[in-house]
Amino acid sequence: MHAPPVQRLITELSKLPGVGGRTAQRLAFHLLRSSDEDAFALAEAIREVKLKITLCEVCFNLADGPRCRICQDARRDPELICVVEEPADVISIERTHEFGGRYHVLGGALSPIDGIDPEDLKLEELYARVTDAAHPVREVVIATNPTTTGEATALHIAGGIRRLAPDVVVTRLASGLPVGADLEYADELTLGRAFAGRRAV
Amino acid sequence: MHAPPVQRLITELSKLPGVGGRTAQRLAFHLLRSSDEDAFALAEAIREVKLKITLCEVCFNLADGPRCRICQDARRDPELICVVEEPADVISIERTHEFGGRYHVLGGALSPIDGIDPEDLKLEELYARVTDAAHPVREVVIATNPTTTGEATALHIAGGIRRLAPDVVVTRLASGLPVGADLEYADELTLGRAFAGRRAV
Repeated sequence: MHAPPVQRLITELSKLPGVGGRTAQRLAFHLLRSSDEDAFALAEAIREVKLKITLCEVCFNLADGPRCRICQDARRDPELICVVEEPADVISIERTHEFGGRYHVLGGALSPIDGIDPEDLKLEELYARVTDAAHPVREVVIATNPTTTGEATALHIAGGIRRLAPDVVVTRLASGLPVGADLEYADELTLGRAFAGRRAV
Repeated sequence: MHAPPVQRLITELSKLPGVGGRTAQRLAFHLLRSSDEDAFALAEAIREVKLKITLCEVCFNLADGPRCRICQDARRDPELICVVEEPADVISIERTHEFGGRYHVLGGALSPIDGIDPEDLKLEELYARVTDAAHPVREVVIATNPTTTGEATALHIAGGIRRLAPDVVVTRLASGLPVGADLEYADELTLGRAFAGRRAV
């Protein structure tokens, strides 16, 4: 139906998450209508990100050099490490402006069903950081997702750190009602967590 | 917050229609996670489409040569022309397998508010085709959208053809209830059209 170059673009666009055939066609026609300059800028940005972005050698966050911007920043507390699943989680936490430490990006969560075992995550690298006598760590905040796989990963990490570095404090992000939520519509697991984690006013 | 190449990619992606900042970030992280091969294939497909696709010299549909596949196809009836607003409309009509003629893509619809006047559309080129003694035309089906601008464009074209080539039959796509619709929820304009255009059973 389409000319081959148009069909190829639609095929490639429909590989993106959340983009079906109709949306891919709409995006392709948009790119056809837009200026050469805009379309080439997008193509070049895709190439550039794949050529220039690597993982930070310390924390495995995205970086455009050997170390990410946070690991390069001397003002960030090196004794406080926040463990997350994905680089996108670093961005979410940075947006809160509540955390002044460093990160450790696991690259996923334990999920035996999907074939993701401890050796597929950056766990050994985390334990090496936590036990490095030259750079002591005070606290590890585990910020994996509050999902089955995220919780399993958190328990696994907490056990590992307790065994290898018993002096390091291990904490987990609070689970409870999201701000602005309505008790009436809260699911029972979340509401249960909110009770279990209640605080003095 | 992001490394500059990541930020550039997010900025370029958020220029796409229906893609906000959050979606752009999700797409960017997807491209970072996907293989170099997949990401480069998308970048190359975008470049290729801009470099290779032009407008057909006859009907102004998308083409990867001087003429589009439909204008090259000798089996398509050259005496029957369907007028549409955009190249995407050609694809929609081809999917029905109901039309065996040729197309004429206007490149939009008349909309004085948006500054789109008759000279911004491929109207002169349509009139030239309709009045070309060497290639007679029997019927022109006007398939502009059933919107204010599409209807205005249809009336404008019908008037033009009547003036220049009174022997050419000019038709308009039927307007009425979409298949599978529910009368209870049909808007009054559509239901009115359905009555006006009722047919003998």
